[in-house]
Amino acid sequence: MKNFKMVVDCLKASKIKKRVALICGVDSHSQEAISAAIREGFIEVIMVGPKSEVESYPIFSEFPDSVQFIDISDADQAAKQAVELIHQGKADILMKGIINTDNLLRVVLNKHTGLLPSGRVLTHLSLAEIPTYEHLLFFMDAAVIPYPTLEQRRAMLGYMVNTCHKFGLEVPRVALVHFTEKVDSKFPYSLECEQLVQESKTGAFGKVVLDGPLDLFTACSSEAAAIKGIESPLNGQADALLFASIESANVFYKSVTLFGQAEMAGLLMGTDCPIIITSRSDSAQTKYNSIALACLTH
Amino acid sequence: MKNFKMVVDCLKASKIKKRVALICGVDSHSQEAISAAIREGFIEVIMVGPKSEVESYPIFSEFPDSVQFIDISDADQAAKQAVELIHQGKADILMKGIINTDNLLRVVLNKHTGLLPSGRVLTHLSLAEIPTYEHLLFFMDAAVIPYPTLEQRRAMLGYMVNTCHKFGLEVPRVALVHFTEKVDSKFPYSLECEQLVQESKTGAFGKVVLDGPLDLFTACSSEAAAIKGIESPLNGQADALLFASIESANVFYKSVTLFGQAEMAGLLMGTDCPIIITSRSDSAQTKYNSIALACLTH
Repeated sequence: MKNFKMVVDCLKASKIKKRVALICGVDSHSQEAISAAIREGFIEVIMVGPKSEVESYPIFSEFPDSVQFIDISDADQAAKQAVELIHQGKADILMKGIINTDNLLRVVLNKHTGLLPSGRVLTHLSLAEIPTYEHLLFFMDAAVIPYPTLEQRRAMLGYMVNTCHKFGLEVPRVALVHFTEKVDSKFPYSLECEQLVQESKTGAFGKVVLDGPLDLFTACSSEAAAIKGIESPLNGQADALLFASIESANVFYKSVTLFGQAEMAGLLMGTDCPIIITSRSDSAQTKYNSIALACLTH
Repeated sequence: MKNFKMVVDCLKASKIKKRVALICGVDSHSQEAISAAIREGFIEVIMVGPKSEVESYPIFSEFPDSVQFIDISDADQAAKQAVELIHQGKADILMKGIINTDNLLRVVLNKHTGLLPSGRVLTHLSLAEIPTYEHLLFFMDAAVIPYPTLEQRRAMLGYMVNTCHKFGLEVPRVALVHFTEKVDSKFPYSLECEQLVQESKTGAFGKVVLDGPLDLFTACSSEAAAIKGIESPLNGQADALLFASIESANVFYKSVTLFGQAEMAGLLMGTDCPIIITSRSDSAQTKYNSIALACLTH
């Protein structure tokens, strides 16, 4: 898909409607985002938080059937209740409003009552709409795992490929990004890339064309790949990027946002349901995009 | 300065003319770059390489006083001769044409006849003109030192601040870039940032406002810094960025080039003279920008 509008078009065409449990969604950006998503018809919302602070928002009188309230003033209690809604099958997606991320994660990661089954890897997926790139670009992990182990990379690849499939990419092109194409024992990540590419050929991650280590040019520009004389089955048209570490993924996120006018979406993955943890500094548009991403991913 | 054109204007206004020793400059991009720089009047060139392959270029008949030839067919020998010109004070800047970078570095790093005095740190400086950023942006190190030690970071900061001064920035704003502003013993780089900021206050790196760890938003967007509530003396207007590792610096280089339409320049630093090591895949414009950067840095 070329852009977030096409994601929403796809949700509407498929008549997808998901139930979002929004924790303390008292901020205007969260309100704008869910209002737009309700209006487009692809979500219903359960507002878990202080009812008096939100019930006057116009959207709730406009679409009363699409909104429920659970009135809880304490943020941590609201988080616990929202997680319980997921367990009860009463909500599909969790969304963070004005609650500290660490507090939310404490509830999500609780071994007995949380949302991360034993053996699953918690990680973060971003999706970028970059005006100068021809289609949407997934990448991991700009926010959660600082320096992934090989085992964590395997899990991340699995989630990523699965998400690409849900976006209609039958055989997604995924790049393992490093600063060079060279495989060198001085750089353990380059050896891990080689290993993962081998494993991908046996079907370990599902249907995917995986290549790496590749630099960002070779991953995302067929022209640059040709000039450098690098042959890659991705042909400079990566659908998704797995970065070496949070440092490079985070710089990518912020570079393309600040200097490439990219629109973003983001999600926690590995949990029982997609979790939107955009921060209060994220725009209403980013939150809206993230809801759309979560709905198609669920 | 806002852009590379202003760098060239500054060179011309200051009547700066440097002597560039170009090693095997037989490729069209190198030729275009030096032709433009000769025409603008800020360099003379000593072509060290196979004379028969270059003497027919039109620039040499147009500006015969600005070009000398040293006819050497073997690339390694040409590199040795070019380095010798620097030692003899007959050239100011070294520029790589069609010679393998490893071969050139072997000559440059030779302990007896090379250009890196004992105790100096070899590193790479990039300069970006990003259309959506209000001025030129220096950054390190996208190409040479994979994972700098604290001692290497000190040297890099010294070079960077010194270069900023030469660009007319009396008190440059330099950011130590990480994925978050938090200082946390789990992330040794964040502790190093704190240490370097302390040292900067005692004047260890010359006149500079240094801050970090900062993420890219806080370093380069006053709006983002304000939304996040982060107070930084840089005020989101960094002149220069020091990245945690080659992985993030390299991703920054390639992100802003591919998706932010940035123009680039690059140099080796730490050596007795600036060394331009742009690769054959770099555009003539990048090589030209790099010559201008080298001339003002020398």
